[in-house]
Amino acid sequence: MKISAAQRKWIAALRNARHRREAGAFVAEGTRCVLETLPRYDVRFLVATPKWLDDNAALLSHCAPEPLTASAEEMRSMSSLQTPQGVLAVYDIPRLPAPTLPQPGELCLALDTVQDPGNLGTIIRVASWFGIRRVFASQSTVDLYNPKVVQATMGGLAGVEVRYLDLSAFLRDAADAGIPVYGTFLDGRDIYRSELTPGGVIVLGNEGNGVSPEVAACCGERLKIPSFPPDGDVVESLNVGTAAAIAAAEFRRRII
Amino acid sequence: MKISAAQRKWIAALRNARHRREAGAFVAEGTRCVLETLPRYDVRFLVATPKWLDDNAALLSHCAPEPLTASAEEMRSMSSLQTPQGVLAVYDIPRLPAPTLPQPGELCLALDTVQDPGNLGTIIRVASWFGIRRVFASQSTVDLYNPKVVQATMGGLAGVEVRYLDLSAFLRDAADAGIPVYGTFLDGRDIYRSELTPGGVIVLGNEGNGVSPEVAACCGERLKIPSFPPDGDVVESLNVGTAAAIAAAEFRRRII
Repeated sequence: MKISAAQRKWIAALRNARHRREAGAFVAEGTRCVLETLPRYDVRFLVATPKWLDDNAALLSHCAPEPLTASAEEMRSMSSLQTPQGVLAVYDIPRLPAPTLPQPGELCLALDTVQDPGNLGTIIRVASWFGIRRVFASQSTVDLYNPKVVQATMGGLAGVEVRYLDLSAFLRDAADAGIPVYGTFLDGRDIYRSELTPGGVIVLGNEGNGVSPEVAACCGERLKIPSFPPDGDVVESLNVGTAAAIAAAEFRRRII
Repeated sequence: MKISAAQRKWIAALRNARHRREAGAFVAEGTRCVLETLPRYDVRFLVATPKWLDDNAALLSHCAPEPLTASAEEMRSMSSLQTPQGVLAVYDIPRLPAPTLPQPGELCLALDTVQDPGNLGTIIRVASWFGIRRVFASQSTVDLYNPKVVQATMGGLAGVEVRYLDLSAFLRDAADAGIPVYGTFLDGRDIYRSELTPGGVIVLGNEGNGVSPEVAACCGERLKIPSFPPDGDVVESLNVGTAAAIAAAEFRRRII
């Protein structure tokens, strides 16, 4: 069946975070991204060009819904990509129960207003690599269902869960429950000379401003990643995805 | 003076790597990027809108050339950015003598067909943070003067030099001269259980294919960054910028 103008308009509006929240839906585009996400989310619509269907219909499992068809021009009108693809899927945003505090020994990440979609994608990939299953994000952090994040992570990678919440309240509760909360700061204590527990929360701050004062107040330990030489002529800071990677690697190194 | 149509066309063509090479010139866009690069490169043209000049002319040092003026629409026709800026600069690509081999004790990076501009930007920032002054790149690696790399790094950061060359020949020469060449591989030896010398070359591979066989043959040591748990259910690989960061951090950790 051909896609209607109203459907196209509704899908195009999912580029907007508020509309995604209200609709409870997000979009994945392109053959690889759609095929990777189809088994993992509840699909509302599939939309494809007749040409894509001719070439690829066999790749769709028999449980996939009947695709709506759209012209290449219509695909472009809905796309978030510079080069629109021949297929897209619209999924339900999963509804999840309120997140629980980290378990004893569980290592988690917390993101305080990380705003760049590419950085969120990198951090999820780092979490997956280092067996970190949960990432807690402030409401001001970029949306996991932002089209660029979806393209980069195929909608959340290999069992990493990203949960949005009131971050300082959550971290205060965690600290009250005896869970170590480590912040990353430019003026913290050298991570290589600090005691690190196997579990806890590593807090990463905003690209420009770092960890906010409110969240910093919840951090029991202030860590820094030392540059080399420690007071050399360097860039002002490491990228937040890079800092997440080095910190997570060091926590894991201590226990392997 | 108003910019001419021929000048606009020539500047727009600098989006293309081959044209940049032939012209020996590259473009930086936006107030911050132009102001940071102006003291560091030989400028051929400054181009700005009358409005930008009204607001910002005082920021230009008296050594800056007289700007050509262009309308917002004309700026758009030359821009590589989604949101064109009110100012751009065209610089000479610096001509440098042939690179020398790493000095004893000097730590360098080598990039084997790293193709994503964002990844090159991340790697340069990592190098700067960890006091790595030289990055050697295969000719197939993304151009340092690609507009996205220029925007991300402000044209090469805090004294990090990126040199393009025949990478396998260079690494063979380095190995012959007794310089340790470390490759990063998915099936290498755990970096945390390997001996690392303070100096040497860390080779990073292509985003999809890793280190090419020809370059791999020059690597005396094959390192891997272990995931956690070591054989867990993880993403296929770390992003190359992330891998560069973790490896560089570990080399530096050993000697601080």
